[in-house]
Amino acid sequence: MNDQRFESVLAELRAVVGPAGWIDDPAAMAPYVEEQRGRYRGAAVAVIAPASTDEVSRVLAHCNAARLGVVPQGGNTGLCGGAVAGADQVILSLRRMNRIRALDARNRTLTAEAGCILAELQRAAAEAGRLFPLSLAAEGSCQIGGNLATNAGGTNALRYGVARDLALGLEVVLADGTVWNGLSTLKKDNTGYDLRDLFVGSEGTLGVITAATLRLFPQPGDVQTALLAVGDIDDALAVLDRLQQASDGRVNACELMSDRSVAFATRHVAGCRAPFATLPPWMLLVEVSGGRVVDELRPLFEATLAEALEAGELLDAALAESQAQAQAFWRLRESIPEAQKHEGGSIKHDVSVPVSAVPEFLRRAGAAVESALPGARVCPFGHLGDGNIHFNVSQPQGADRETFLGEWERCNRIVHDIVAELGGSFSAEHGIGRLKRNELLRYKPAVAVEAMRRIKQALDPNGILNPGALL
Amino acid sequence: MNDQRFESVLAELRAVVGPAGWIDDPAAMAPYVEEQRGRYRGAAVAVIAPASTDEVSRVLAHCNAARLGVVPQGGNTGLCGGAVAGADQVILSLRRMNRIRALDARNRTLTAEAGCILAELQRAAAEAGRLFPLSLAAEGSCQIGGNLATNAGGTNALRYGVARDLALGLEVVLADGTVWNGLSTLKKDNTGYDLRDLFVGSEGTLGVITAATLRLFPQPGDVQTALLAVGDIDDALAVLDRLQQASDGRVNACELMSDRSVAFATRHVAGCRAPFATLPPWMLLVEVSGGRVVDELRPLFEATLAEALEAGELLDAALAESQAQAQAFWRLRESIPEAQKHEGGSIKHDVSVPVSAVPEFLRRAGAAVESALPGARVCPFGHLGDGNIHFNVSQPQGADRETFLGEWERCNRIVHDIVAELGGSFSAEHGIGRLKRNELLRYKPAVAVEAMRRIKQALDPNGILNPGALL
Repeated sequence: MNDQRFESVLAELRAVVGPAGWIDDPAAMAPYVEEQRGRYRGAAVAVIAPASTDEVSRVLAHCNAARLGVVPQGGNTGLCGGAVAGADQVILSLRRMNRIRALDARNRTLTAEAGCILAELQRAAAEAGRLFPLSLAAEGSCQIGGNLATNAGGTNALRYGVARDLALGLEVVLADGTVWNGLSTLKKDNTGYDLRDLFVGSEGTLGVITAATLRLFPQPGDVQTALLAVGDIDDALAVLDRLQQASDGRVNACELMSDRSVAFATRHVAGCRAPFATLPPWMLLVEVSGGRVVDELRPLFEATLAEALEAGELLDAALAESQAQAQAFWRLRESIPEAQKHEGGSIKHDVSVPVSAVPEFLRRAGAAVESALPGARVCPFGHLGDGNIHFNVSQPQGADRETFLGEWERCNRIVHDIVAELGGSFSAEHGIGRLKRNELLRYKPAVAVEAMRRIKQALDPNGILNPGALL
Repeated sequence: MNDQRFESVLAELRAVVGPAGWIDDPAAMAPYVEEQRGRYRGAAVAVIAPASTDEVSRVLAHCNAARLGVVPQGGNTGLCGGAVAGADQVILSLRRMNRIRALDARNRTLTAEAGCILAELQRAAAEAGRLFPLSLAAEGSCQIGGNLATNAGGTNALRYGVARDLALGLEVVLADGTVWNGLSTLKKDNTGYDLRDLFVGSEGTLGVITAATLRLFPQPGDVQTALLAVGDIDDALAVLDRLQQASDGRVNACELMSDRSVAFATRHVAGCRAPFATLPPWMLLVEVSGGRVVDELRPLFEATLAEALEAGELLDAALAESQAQAQAFWRLRESIPEAQKHEGGSIKHDVSVPVSAVPEFLRRAGAAVESALPGARVCPFGHLGDGNIHFNVSQPQGADRETFLGEWERCNRIVHDIVAELGGSFSAEHGIGRLKRNELLRYKPAVAVEAMRRIKQALDPNGILNPGALL
C-alpha cells in the first residue's frame, strides 16, 4: 500500500486486535486473498481478525474515519468473488469469533458467533437432541456469518428454507462501528422495519454480522433415501408432488441429475455407481425424514414410490437399504462438480425458475446452448424442488479449454435471458459478489437497483463496506 | 381541509380514479376513518380507491409532488392505529384491487392483489387442492395487503410462519409513484438486498403493497384437535415439545387459555363450555394436521397425549370426536376477547418472549400487575407455541372503568419492562401504528431506530407515506 494516509489507521487497527489478530505477511495472507475456485486472486493491506464484537466495532470505527475499505470474510468458500479484497483494502476475518454463546433446546434456538464453522453448529444442535438443517458442500469450512451474509441455500432448503429462514436475530456492527444487538430469539416481533433480513444476503456491504440466533428443529428418528430413474422432468415434478403430499412436506431434498452428469461422476470419481442397468435420462435423489424410530417412514415412502411407478411417473426406483447405501447415493450427487473438472472447462450458471417452469427452462436453455456452442455438453443438476438448477456446460470433447471459457459471457447471456423470460433468477444461491454485478444491472429492475443504492448510502455513507461487491 | 394548496392535487387525484374510486362524503367515509376497536377516530380529506397498480402509481406521484400525506388502508381491521388518517391526509384504500392474478398449483404459489380478502384467498387455494395457511380472527374482512404490511400472525403461525414467511414476492408502489415489480415466485433468489422483507411489516410507511405472490402448501387430509387440562406452563411446554417431536412439527396451533379467560368465555358467550368437570389452571387447544385420509393422524395423536398423561404433564385431555366438537373447542378460544368485554375495562398487551421464558413471564408479570393494581384480574391467553401471549388485564370487579383504563400506561410499563428483561417484544403481532410509537422509542435500541429513520428518509424523502405511523 502506497498511500501514506493509511499508516496511522493501520497502527490503530493493529493496536485494537493485537498480534494474534493481525496478518500482513504475504504468504500468511495467501489463503485469505485467493478465492477457492481460483477465479479471483485479490490482495489486501492486511488481514484483521478481531476476537470480539467490541474489537469489530473499534476496527470499523477506525476504518470509517479513515475511509479505508473493509472486506468482511468468513470461511472464504464463496464462488462469486464476494470476499475478494483490493490492494488498498483490509480483510476483516471473523474466524476468531467462533463461540457458541447459547443453546436453548426448549426454545429451539442457538446463538452463535459469526466465525463458527457450519458443521460445528450442526454437531452442537445434534448433541442437544435438535437439528440445525443448513447443509452445503462447504460445511466443513464455511462459517455461519458468511452463510448468512450470502443467504446460503444447500440441499435441505426444500424443507427447512435458506439461511434467511433459519435466522431469528442478528448482531451487526454498522459501518461507523455502532453495534446493533438484534439477537432476538423471537418468532413474532412486529416492532419496526425488518433490519435482520436487510443484512442477511447483503454480502457484507451494509454491516458486519458478528453473531446470530438460529432456529433449531426436532431431530428426525428416521431418514429414507432413494435414487429414482425418470424419463422427463414433468414426471419428476409429479413424483415430488406425490411425495410432498404423502409426507406432509417432510421431503428434505429432491436433487436432479442429468444422464450426462451421472455419467461424468461414475466415469471420474471412485465409488460412484448408478444403481440402474441402463442410464435413465434423469435421476432424482429424494430424501424424507421424520418420526422417532428407524424405518418409521419406510412404509409411507415405499407405498408412495410404488404409486408413482404404477402411474408411470417412474422408470425405476432404488431405495437405500442401509445408511452406507444412502451415503453412496449422496456421494453420486455430490461428486458431479468434481467430476466435471475432468471433462475440461465448464461454464456455470446458478439459476432458479418457478418449479413448474423447470421443464421448459431445461428444454429451451439446452437447445439454445447446444445450438450456439456446437459440441458443448450441457450438464444440468441441482435442487429441483426449489427450481434451482446448476446449469453447467462442459466444453466440447477435445476443444481448447481457454477458447471455450472465452464464451462464458455469451453463454451466460443465452441462459440468463431465458431464465428472465420465465420469471427466474440469474443467481439463485451463490449471490452477486464481484462476478455478477453486470448481470444484476442488466436483469434487476432499475427501481430495485436504485432502492438498493439509496439503502447502501443510508447505512454506509462513506462506502467502506465491501467496496465493489454487489452494487 | 383548509389548505388551498391541495385543491389542484385533489382534482388531479379525482381524475385518476374517477367517481368509482373517490369518497369525500363524511358519512360514506366513516367506516374508513374510525378504527374497529373504537380507540381511534381519524379524519381524511378523501378516501381514494384506485382500481389498478397504474392508478396507485399516479395517485402517489401526485401526492408526492404536492407533499400530501397518504395513509394506505386494507380492511381497516388493525388494532394499533396503523391506518388512521389526519384531517390533512388522504386514505388510500386498496379494496378495489381485489383480483387473484394467478394460481400455480404445481409451483404452489398464488398471486393476489392487495385488496383480496384473506378468506377468499384461503378458499381459492382450497379449490386448487392447496392450503393458504394464514388465519386470524378478522379473516372475513381483512385484506392480504394489510396482512403483509403489518406482518400478521394468527393461529397457524406456529407451523406455517407469519405473513412474512408466506410471501415470496411483492409488487410495491414507492412514494414517488415508481412501481417495483418484485412479484417473484422463487424460493431462491440471491440478487441483492431483500427489499421484499423491508416492505413487509413496514405498515405502509415505505411503499404501498399492491400485489403479492404467496406460498401454498399441501392440503391436509386429516385434522386432529384436542383441549388439554394442564397444571402449569412448564407442563404445557413439555406437552407441546412431545407433540412437535412425534408429529415432525405438524402442530398447527398450541393456544393457551388461563382459567379466568375460560371462565369469562363460558360465563358470557353462548355455547362455550369447558369439557372438564373442574376448571384446570390452564387449558391448551392443540391441533395437528396432515396425511391424506380422515383420522390418519389419530393413532399418533392419541398415543402422544397418552404418553403425556402418563408422564404427569396433563391433568386431562378431551379429543374432538367430530368436526363440530373441534369447532366448539375453537369457539371457546376465540370467544375470549369478546367475553372480556363483559367484565369491564381491559388493559391489553400483545407481547412475545422466548418460548422457554413464558412460565417466568407469566409468573412475574402476573404478580407485578396484581400488586400494582389491587383487584385487577389478569387474564392471559394466546399463542403459546410462538411465545406470543395476549396478556390482558380486566378491571377489578365493581371498579370504575375509566379510572381503571387510566392505568393503561402504568400497566404497560410494568409488563413491557418484564418482557424486555426476558428478551421479548412489546408488540408481537399487532405492530406499532400510532399506538405504540412511544414504546418503540423506549424499548428498541437507538441504533435500530436510527437505521429505520435513515431507511425511511432514503425511500420516502418527502415523508408522505403514512405520516405519524411507526416512526
